Amino acid sequence: MRDIAGGITAVKGIRAAGICCGIKKSALDLALIVSDRPATVAGVTTTNQTKAAPVLLCERQLKGGKFSAIVANSGNANACTGRQGALDAAQTRDRLAQLLGRPTGEVFVASTGVIGKRLPISKVLSGIREALGRLSVTGGEAAARAIMTTDTQQKEVAVRFELDGKPIVIGGMAKGSGMIAPNLATMLCFVGTDARVSAPLLRRVLRRAVGDTFNAITVDGCMSTNDIVLLFANGMSDAPPIKAGTPQLDVFEEALFQILSRLAYMIVKDGEGATKLIRVEVRGSRTAHDARVAAMAVANSALVKTAFFGEDCNWGRIMAALGASGIRFDPNCVEIALDRIPVVRKGVGLGAAAERRAAVRMRRPEFDLTIDLHKGTGQAAVLTTDLSEAYARINAGYRS
Amino acid sequence: MRDIAGGITAVKGIRAAGICCGIKKSALDLALIVSDRPATVAGVTTTNQTKAAPVLLCERQLKGGKFSAIVANSGNANACTGRQGALDAAQTRDRLAQLLGRPTGEVFVASTGVIGKRLPISKVLSGIREALGRLSVTGGEAAARAIMTTDTQQKEVAVRFELDGKPIVIGGMAKGSGMIAPNLATMLCFVGTDARVSAPLLRRVLRRAVGDTFNAITVDGCMSTNDIVLLFANGMSDAPPIKAGTPQLDVFEEALFQILSRLAYMIVKDGEGATKLIRVEVRGSRTAHDARVAAMAVANSALVKTAFFGEDCNWGRIMAALGASGIRFDPNCVEIALDRIPVVRKGVGLGAAAERRAAVRMRRPEFDLTIDLHKGTGQAAVLTTDLSEAYARINAGYRS
Repeated sequence: MRDIAGGITAVKGIRAAGICCGIKKSALDLALIVSDRPATVAGVTTTNQTKAAPVLLCERQLKGGKFSAIVANSGNANACTGRQGALDAAQTRDRLAQLLGRPTGEVFVASTGVIGKRLPISKVLSGIREALGRLSVTGGEAAARAIMTTDTQQKEVAVRFELDGKPIVIGGMAKGSGMIAPNLATMLCFVGTDARVSAPLLRRVLRRAVGDTFNAITVDGCMSTNDIVLLFANGMSDAPPIKAGTPQLDVFEEALFQILSRLAYMIVKDGEGATKLIRVEVRGSRTAHDARVAAMAVANSALVKTAFFGEDCNWGRIMAALGASGIRFDPNCVEIALDRIPVVRKGVGLGAAAERRAAVRMRRPEFDLTIDLHKGTGQAAVLTTDLSEAYARINAGYRS
Repeated sequence: MRDIAGGITAVKGIRAAGICCGIKKSALDLALIVSDRPATVAGVTTTNQTKAAPVLLCERQLKGGKFSAIVANSGNANACTGRQGALDAAQTRDRLAQLLGRPTGEVFVASTGVIGKRLPISKVLSGIREALGRLSVTGGEAAARAIMTTDTQQKEVAVRFELDGKPIVIGGMAKGSGMIAPNLATMLCFVGTDARVSAPLLRRVLRRAVGDTFNAITVDGCMSTNDIVLLFANGMSDAPPIKAGTPQLDVFEEALFQILSRLAYMIVKDGEGATKLIRVEVRGSRTAHDARVAAMAVANSALVKTAFFGEDCNWGRIMAALGASGIRFDPNCVEIALDRIPVVRKGVGLGAAAERRAAVRMRRPEFDLTIDLHKGTGQAAVLTTDLSEAYARINAGYRS
């Protein structure tokens, strides 16, 4: 498996474009991704109950399991826009389907940006026409830029590997920022492949891959109204179809995991206001679910995150966050290490010298926090950021 | 019912003292509260699974339902101190019981301050002797100061009312700060009364009162390892015993609710880093539990709190926080008002003019946020603060 350039357009039969349709003043704000041949598709959407109109539309479209194209705009989330928002999302889909000559059920829509303002539908509709005229096999980067809101740069990645001697490419783009700006930076991720995979298998594969990547990052614990991850497979590679329970599937899943893992890392790494990226790992829990809950509780704790910012090995806050997480564990068994420097054993501190050594590691922009509960074999890891002064300043918007 | 001075020592038969035993350099750090006659007692402790040694001790003592005295130190939480911490807490209790001539089961211990450092036990033991010599009926204020950590001022309140023509006093103290400093400001609350109430009835009464007060405040969503609320009743008033299901109990509960309510308010109001106090009320939920969960989710949302700080009526973030709370509701039915200015109806915004009027109210140091889900009769309110730049700065400690 090796990295290649081109992002989502490195995939055979995928073309893309990114243009400015006028939602933003002059920056790219409309992305189009088209598969020359209809593809199977799977997706996961936000679990936030306040779902934006395009998310609700995607959920319905996903039932059909087929994908031809997606149009994604930035600058407006089309969320909390009521009945009109639903009509605007549907009209967007219908116009693209009509111009492409594909069934409406195979066309998807996504939006990210301001919540609560009506989508400038006429700009989007004329933008679709223009974007169609600019589709190309090198358009992946422009499309990746056109879905940005608070990101400091576009995020794309592609890998090529071989199954039975035939090349397969998986390529994708994402947006989402380690620091959430005033308009709630949604996470969007679109991944394509030229492998041939059935829709049901794609669904299982995506759920597994997302569980340890996109669902294992946290920035400020706030779930967007617009998050979507889409994975589509157009079968245009010469490799034979991938079946469940085969070594070929394992290779494919590993490559997909790499793609999503790296896009998720880029999301956490990006953004103003975050100065550090921390991998919080919990092991030794009774269940895998417990490990995830505990890791998230520590990763989301405001006091733990400010200690990260302060490069302060304040393990008492970590113990408090674990204790408040809701899982059952024995505080007297807990072991904590920072970049493999032990600072807590059997629930008590190992002393100031250990804490000083740990604090030195915390001056780096990335470090690991490992928590062993010594109660079982559950394990989970989460990526998170620190919480800095800049966070509140950026998100207050009108003051300071 | 009317306010009176004296805090916990306004209660008949309660004496208190606050001294400096040397845990802190020169500030008061040891509080002693004694009831001349043994009292019935009820208490609630933190639900954090990482419980400090004094908390575990209190939980055992509470089973007996009797109270004679409590010694509470600040400057050291005696948390995450292992076996030694448990021995130190027990030794503290035993020394006080011995010097007072009361059973050890009636003596309580509390600590607040740094986590993970051993309690300076010899200072505490000699401090107990000194504090005993200074017990007085005006010692409430010094005791309230001696339990402070990050609080900017002591917190005490007392009320007097009559039952069947006889006066009853309820008085209490608390500590805990609207902004949590590097050492995790625990909430401690000690309330005494000269009413005569059985221990079982006291337990029920306390649980109800705490539910809408101390369990309905949030500052940064972080639960301490040391939180304790104690309520004791020594029966030294001339009023007849209070029984369940009587109008007298209603009067007593209303007075207790006022006491806890005001102490909880003082806690949220206090502290560096918070510039605003907001009452978040959710109504119209399917259940009361749903209302509490939703109110807490909104009150704890980093994005909502930074919007409060920015005096920005960003209702989209409130919709997102509701949607992520886990309760079931229909976003298309949601109504939101700020200080009774409607800004959202049926899940969509009411326009920029309404938001501007709301933003004007948000310049005040206190305002109300009301969310109506229009799905039932559940209701709950939570007090919270904004999230300012100062928060991260204070809690980083070593940097910035």
